[in-house]
Amino acid sequence: MHKWNKRSRPERLERRFEFSSYELTRDFLDKLGELCETRKRFPDISFGKNYVNLTLRPDGEEKDSELTELDDGFALDIDHLYN
Amino acid sequence: MHKWNKRSRPERLERRFEFSSYELTRDFLDKLGELCETRKRFPDISFGKNYVNLTLRPDGEEKDSELTELDDGFALDIDHLYN
Repeated sequence: MHKWNKRSRPERLERRFEFSSYELTRDFLDKLGELCETRKRFPDISFGKNYVNLTLRPDGEEKDSELTELDDGFALDIDHLYN
Repeated sequence: MHKWNKRSRPERLERRFEFSSYELTRDFLDKLGELCETRKRFPDISFGKNYVNLTLRPDGEEKDSELTELDDGFALDIDHLYN
């Protein structure tokens, strides 16, 4: 199971990742960028020196899409980048 | 002169940069990351597939620091990365 917080209206998954240095933050962002490009999925990402906040929205075109197992799988793949 | 919006309470500079592809967004983020590391300044950065939002806070330790010419110079250097 992934470690993300599920929010509603609209449905989305959120998680904050913390890092002890800017170098580690950037390493994570680089790996994340490659994963996003491979999957053609582009979450909203906010970051500073020591953190990255991610918001994953459902992988659907419709405005009221709901989260599916595909989104959970993507979240889990991002968790693996962090470990 | 730079193209940033100056906000107050607390003082900060904000600018949104837009890109026609994720590849261009990532190119800009890579160059920005190098600049931040060189200057040891770490703005708050938010991005998605086609945009980057930046918030620059004054380069002081104090909570109520005000923006100075140094901050304007850093903003201008970021503008140059975009051009």
